[in-house]
Amino acid sequence: MKTLTIGLTQFAAVEDPSVNLDSAERLVRAAAAKGAQVVCLQEMCSTLYFCRREDPALFRYAEAIPGNTTERFASIAKELGVVVVLPLFEKRATGLYHNTAAVLDADGTYLGKYRKMHIPEDPGFHEKFYFTPGDLGYRIWETAFGKIGVLICWDQWYPEAARLTAMQGANVLFYPTAIGWLAEERETLGPAQHNAWETVQKGHAVANGCFVAAANRVGREGDTVFWGQSFVSNPYGEVIARTPVEEERAEAVVCDLEQLEEFRNIWPFFRDRRIDSYEAVTKRWLD
Amino acid sequence: MKTLTIGLTQFAAVEDPSVNLDSAERLVRAAAAKGAQVVCLQEMCSTLYFCRREDPALFRYAEAIPGNTTERFASIAKELGVVVVLPLFEKRATGLYHNTAAVLDADGTYLGKYRKMHIPEDPGFHEKFYFTPGDLGYRIWETAFGKIGVLICWDQWYPEAARLTAMQGANVLFYPTAIGWLAEERETLGPAQHNAWETVQKGHAVANGCFVAAANRVGREGDTVFWGQSFVSNPYGEVIARTPVEEERAEAVVCDLEQLEEFRNIWPFFRDRRIDSYEAVTKRWLD
Repeated sequence: MKTLTIGLTQFAAVEDPSVNLDSAERLVRAAAAKGAQVVCLQEMCSTLYFCRREDPALFRYAEAIPGNTTERFASIAKELGVVVVLPLFEKRATGLYHNTAAVLDADGTYLGKYRKMHIPEDPGFHEKFYFTPGDLGYRIWETAFGKIGVLICWDQWYPEAARLTAMQGANVLFYPTAIGWLAEERETLGPAQHNAWETVQKGHAVANGCFVAAANRVGREGDTVFWGQSFVSNPYGEVIARTPVEEERAEAVVCDLEQLEEFRNIWPFFRDRRIDSYEAVTKRWLD
Repeated sequence: MKTLTIGLTQFAAVEDPSVNLDSAERLVRAAAAKGAQVVCLQEMCSTLYFCRREDPALFRYAEAIPGNTTERFASIAKELGVVVVLPLFEKRATGLYHNTAAVLDADGTYLGKYRKMHIPEDPGFHEKFYFTPGDLGYRIWETAFGKIGVLICWDQWYPEAARLTAMQGANVLFYPTAIGWLAEERETLGPAQHNAWETVQKGHAVANGCFVAAANRVGREGDTVFWGQSFVSNPYGEVIARTPVEEERAEAVVCDLEQLEEFRNIWPFFRDRRIDSYEAVTKRWLD
């Protein structure tokens, strides 16, 4: 295959999970209708971004993976012949939950799941209360449309996560996301924060010679305004598609895999890595 | 100190090293006159970028570090009260050479040197012939104007190098550079290549919450057109200064170190690194 067509989606969530899952299904179908082969949904696509506060009652939104929702979207994936990256709130056991993404192949096969490794805890983003850090490591899947890796939101700030996924052969790193501005910071820090977010992911695309696709949510939830702007970067760090700040979208974005070949052969970064010198990356800090 | 003022320089080199060193001195003085506190010169500032071909006769340009040139610039640093990052072709022994940068403190003290760790070998960039890969690891220096790290050119594509320098407490990562377009690629790949180069370094600034400063050369040498555009990025990945493509420059760029504090406290990436999961970064590839 010389191209891979990414389905890039974003929508505003509501309280009722069944409405959100209907939105997710609608966008998978819309992206597939435009020619998408691998459709990525936003982080925790079945719920509001409830981590704005800490409330044990909200664990009721968690579900088994695989389970009912993965079965529903596996059927859709099979019907449409598309791969689906399906991020959900995972219940592993009572009192043990993860922020997870399931990967469903184009024939409806459940390929496996990635559990978010890097968990934030910041004003408006109280994830350390809800999510046990992932224990499955960094993964890729050989799908009907090639090798893809999945990381989730806060992972996107960590070059190590991108590297360890790309080193398994991923052509695309998918980043389901829920990021926005705190309403009071939007005017002052907003443009700089959005620039940082997009830049660091484009940097992963360059450093690893792969495509990067981030699917963010839109809409205001409490004090948080999710900034949409889902995007795809090519290996040169060029944004080849970017959706709006506030509107629901399902786009199909063609990625030229020959450009990936060209990039890596012109700039063969993996050849020259000084693996003898990287061990201290496993330290917290060097002092 | 609440700010650090970077001296960003670029010039076109000629055959005669004494002319190049005079250019370097002129730019250090010009940057200092504008208020620069830490002046960074371009990679191998005493010579042409001779790695366009492989020729054993060119080892004659190498010199001891510390040595005559570091002594000359240490005097200038002391006279002006500025720190100088001085990249030179290092002769360690006959038949053993490095691509190195010396760091001279504002009182003229020779603080030490960094030897380029990642060595390219591409058409027009035959560095594996000339340079033994660095064996001093990643380093920072506590200068009169705070902690700085130095990496060199091809290192700039490696998130591991940026991380391991930042983890020692560097406020700024300096990247002396010699990068350009092959003349026949400039029209087709030029904009994408420049974008990739700037993006990956801005990504290091974001991922590590620090400033990044790259000092490139200008001018045409053989088939290579060096693309100038030396720049400084803040921790948000925003370019706060960028010099032209073709002209000699010495600029003073004020970096707000309180912005670094703000950035890291809003987005405390170092807190959440999953150091238990990074060991495979020391592998070449994962398959």
